[in-house]
Amino acid sequence: MPIENIKSPADIKTLSSAELKDLAEELREIIIERVSINGGHLASNLGVVELTLALHYIFDSPSDKIVWDVGHQSYTHKLLTGRFEKFPTIRKHKGISGFPKIDESIHDSFGTGHSSTSISAALGIITARDKKKEKFKVIAVIGDGALTAGIAFEGLNHAGHLKKDLIVVLNDNEMSISPNVGALSAYLNRILTGDLYQKFKKETKSFIESIPKLGGPFSKVAKKAEETLKGLFLPGILFEELGFNYIGPIDGHNIELLIETFKKVKNADAPTLVHVITKKGKGYEFSEKDPCIFHGVGPFEVETGDPISNKKIPSYSEIFGQVLTLLAGHDERIIAISAAMREGTGLECFAEKYPDRFYDVGIAEPHAVTFAAGLASQGLRPVVAVYSTFLQRGYDEIIHDVCLQNLPVVFAIDRAGIVGEDGPTHQGVFDISYLRHIPNLVVMAPKDEHELKDMLEFSLKYNGPSAIRYPRGRVHNAGFKIQDSNIELGKAEILKEGEDIALIAIGNTVYPALNAAALLEKDGIKAAVINARFVKPMDKGLIFSMASRIKRVVTIEENLLAGGFGSAVLEYLNSVDIHDVKIKTLGIPDEFVEQGSQAILRKKYGLDEEGIYQNCKAFLSTLTSVH
Amino acid sequence: MPIENIKSPADIKTLSSAELKDLAEELREIIIERVSINGGHLASNLGVVELTLALHYIFDSPSDKIVWDVGHQSYTHKLLTGRFEKFPTIRKHKGISGFPKIDESIHDSFGTGHSSTSISAALGIITARDKKKEKFKVIAVIGDGALTAGIAFEGLNHAGHLKKDLIVVLNDNEMSISPNVGALSAYLNRILTGDLYQKFKKETKSFIESIPKLGGPFSKVAKKAEETLKGLFLPGILFEELGFNYIGPIDGHNIELLIETFKKVKNADAPTLVHVITKKGKGYEFSEKDPCIFHGVGPFEVETGDPISNKKIPSYSEIFGQVLTLLAGHDERIIAISAAMREGTGLECFAEKYPDRFYDVGIAEPHAVTFAAGLASQGLRPVVAVYSTFLQRGYDEIIHDVCLQNLPVVFAIDRAGIVGEDGPTHQGVFDISYLRHIPNLVVMAPKDEHELKDMLEFSLKYNGPSAIRYPRGRVHNAGFKIQDSNIELGKAEILKEGEDIALIAIGNTVYPALNAAALLEKDGIKAAVINARFVKPMDKGLIFSMASRIKRVVTIEENLLAGGFGSAVLEYLNSVDIHDVKIKTLGIPDEFVEQGSQAILRKKYGLDEEGIYQNCKAFLSTLTSVH
Repeated sequence: MPIENIKSPADIKTLSSAELKDLAEELREIIIERVSINGGHLASNLGVVELTLALHYIFDSPSDKIVWDVGHQSYTHKLLTGRFEKFPTIRKHKGISGFPKIDESIHDSFGTGHSSTSISAALGIITARDKKKEKFKVIAVIGDGALTAGIAFEGLNHAGHLKKDLIVVLNDNEMSISPNVGALSAYLNRILTGDLYQKFKKETKSFIESIPKLGGPFSKVAKKAEETLKGLFLPGILFEELGFNYIGPIDGHNIELLIETFKKVKNADAPTLVHVITKKGKGYEFSEKDPCIFHGVGPFEVETGDPISNKKIPSYSEIFGQVLTLLAGHDERIIAISAAMREGTGLECFAEKYPDRFYDVGIAEPHAVTFAAGLASQGLRPVVAVYSTFLQRGYDEIIHDVCLQNLPVVFAIDRAGIVGEDGPTHQGVFDISYLRHIPNLVVMAPKDEHELKDMLEFSLKYNGPSAIRYPRGRVHNAGFKIQDSNIELGKAEILKEGEDIALIAIGNTVYPALNAAALLEKDGIKAAVINARFVKPMDKGLIFSMASRIKRVVTIEENLLAGGFGSAVLEYLNSVDIHDVKIKTLGIPDEFVEQGSQAILRKKYGLDEEGIYQNCKAFLSTLTSVH
Repeated sequence: MPIENIKSPADIKTLSSAELKDLAEELREIIIERVSINGGHLASNLGVVELTLALHYIFDSPSDKIVWDVGHQSYTHKLLTGRFEKFPTIRKHKGISGFPKIDESIHDSFGTGHSSTSISAALGIITARDKKKEKFKVIAVIGDGALTAGIAFEGLNHAGHLKKDLIVVLNDNEMSISPNVGALSAYLNRILTGDLYQKFKKETKSFIESIPKLGGPFSKVAKKAEETLKGLFLPGILFEELGFNYIGPIDGHNIELLIETFKKVKNADAPTLVHVITKKGKGYEFSEKDPCIFHGVGPFEVETGDPISNKKIPSYSEIFGQVLTLLAGHDERIIAISAAMREGTGLECFAEKYPDRFYDVGIAEPHAVTFAAGLASQGLRPVVAVYSTFLQRGYDEIIHDVCLQNLPVVFAIDRAGIVGEDGPTHQGVFDISYLRHIPNLVVMAPKDEHELKDMLEFSLKYNGPSAIRYPRGRVHNAGFKIQDSNIELGKAEILKEGEDIALIAIGNTVYPALNAAALLEKDGIKAAVINARFVKPMDKGLIFSMASRIKRVVTIEENLLAGGFGSAVLEYLNSVDIHDVKIKTLGIPDEFVEQGSQAILRKKYGLDEEGIYQNCKAFLSTLTSVH
């Protein structure tokens, strides 16, 4: 059956195995083609084509609810649930999401994006089902990488306790995100390689075999004991001990086997974990070879697997990784920590050069933060490299373990601000608001890659906790004169003098502000431009003198306005007595930021040079017209 | 040796077993007496007297580092590490802390207060040790309750992977915080009751016994196989699978056994978990009988165990629990969720009346939030009752799982604001700042118990996420006229008219503001008093009209100023054009709030009626003197 005829999962239930296999091939082609154009998650989606088909073959969505952990593997699910026609819009502005979204389809039972929430959410759904006396099945599909996060364990622990018929499908990619993260991963590997079972067999075989072949009651006892022992040992003992029935491991690309297994599991009345082995990137030569690179990608050539974009300009992540590697050569105390994001945060080079000073802790941000605090308490200089949106998971630990003890941990916060196509679950627009109220913490944002380097150097010398936020994407590299930025605690930088209006920008809004000032200049408006550098401590002296003199202040940030940088400027200027200062704050209003390219979204919020220019003009005209 | 002669742990190393036992008795007496006067954690401290003695007997603090998880069991540790003389000041303002604190003693290797961080911190410390090529041992002491939190699992998972000689002492209280929270707890119980081992023995005994008594090579094989099997099975298989050597369970009140065990463990070169069974409240009749009540207590009579304080006035927690129980009778959709804090959040009555609608998820705030989101996604009305400081752990889940999906989860945030004697790890002064920037979330604070009831009713009808923050302690109950507060979304309440100054207060600062207004009245200053009720959405109309008319606005909150309620008022008033409004924001400055009674701390920050009065006077006089 051609995919365009599948309007709902019901349409695949009549297909034969052979037809399902053909469909799997077709789905793979569509996914490869679309991701090669739109960018997106390739390897994870190619890995679960058969798994998704089998789930929809056996279970009845939307009555039965499938919760896709992280959700970056939901493309096949989307294609089977009435979104084939909209599929070309995936990850585009106003298009369908790259993740499950409850508003998008009744088949998306719970929205995801961040990792490891599926067991908790599914447990909530199944508990509600029983309260409402409804009848349906709930399935959480979670990867082996996601299973290392604390919340997943908390969910398992609670699920094993509640004893409901929750089905957890453990989608084991063989290699997780990067190989060998954590003891759990090693445990799963032992299951896969059969080491556990082999050990058992080896130790018992000679024993059992050496028992004289006696008939009657003795052989019965022996057989019973063997089975008991086997039952206690066999692969999933860890999950069994947590109250789950364990089934597996089974081949996640064998669709008949998957269907047969889910058919049985559907009738289970206790928590069941089905361990499915899949190959990330399955069915596309290049992604099979390098699933890491093809985990999340931009547009690429299908024939060669080569990226289409011009990669000559490095990303902020790459610059960060290079600089940290360089600095580590001069300071043995530097340790790099990543939460399953070695590549994503640009730390490959560091990990290669200093394998003993690089720690990938798995998807475990809370632990990453407290582990860093432990290191810092002994005089080391840990750098936690993490995306803004994922650091939200470590908020309490930043307060309680790092800042309260004033420990010199550096948070290198990548993908801060507008992130783009991944949409609202991934935008890094909260960090200034959730960090700046934490006592002792220094919060910075560089205007470009040179300043990132200098801030990193500064923070590694600073004897307290600090955070540097920088954006997703290529570095600024605009040909502005490179000079040592002489980062001093709490000191801003005047980039342009002017007397009509003062633009105080932070981070990646600094150059757009400078360009907007040039446009204002053409209109005869002389704008001063300040690169704030520090959200906290703020350069109060400079801001005071600018505000006193120029009286018209515009703050610019790629963060929520509520509690953000502009809010800090307001708090400060309100606390001192200056007459008649008018302030306009530019940033993100009180809403979740939708998906779309960074350019589209910056335009939408008036944070590109044109937007800043127009906002300044409007601000000035209000002032003139009223007074 | 009398306790006053012990200046450091070295002094106990020469004691005999009998002397150690005497010392244990002495320590218990001191702890019981002191807690009966100062209040504090009793049951947890009485449970670990022998354990602490044994640890300090074998390990050499401060060279060896003990990390006390949560830290509410560190009194014996404090008494043995040079703090006997200061012990009477424990939990008092400017006194020693009720928790380990790195600034307080070189023996406090890492500060704690929140649960479940010890493994992560200890792993950081031991990793730093190896980098610095130092030689010492690191011990994390963690309770069975704390082990259910995700971050503890993340730490175990990483520790099992790094394979360092970390020692984890699992202090198993038999009953945890409340019995039977989670599958892990059930697992530990099976270990204790020996069910696992019994099952093994039962199944294998008849088998082994039925083997004919043959000599020679066969019996050797049989013996070897038996040992292998035993080694694989025995109690700690779950920990063994995570890479830990498991030792135990051992009696945590048998000091010789503890010493002997730690002596062996000290030389282990791989991660080792020692499972120690202790009795919470051990050695004091009343706390043994009711360790829950004696977990954290106020002053009590040693002879009777009766609290000294007058409990006629109920606490906010009690009112919350009563009201929710009442409301649950009218609305079947209401579900209560607690993270191991049934008593602390006042939910005993709910749990008793509606056991099927009450979920204690263990110390697992992230899961609690996402579990609630799952429930809400199916039309139920979950109420997550949690202390302000602990909800910090669920920050990401509040954004990602609840608010992004606009799900009607109610956060009942207890102990918001200044909490008191537990000190900086427990103050609830961040919540307005970390919640108010989250889109879709309604944030409220009641002025008293009646408003708490009304806000709870409101939030359970409201079709989106909401948070209600209320303080620790007895309800207001000031005899003000009780009336239905008619809570309307985003509507504030004018409590007093006035034209000289407008006091906009939120939550428990409303009555002090009203009293301050009365004091101002005596000075001829007419103050309007507004009960803001909503941090978000704010009553913009009312605040606009008040500010336009009165021109002098004071905001009052028990929260950080940075990003807090006053900051929201500033953001709003800055965004509209009103001439010449002067605003003063009262709240907590940019620092961690130390320990001390709520009264002392409120006075310190000028948040009691006298402080508000003085602040208003000073504010008005600045305005008059300058202009």
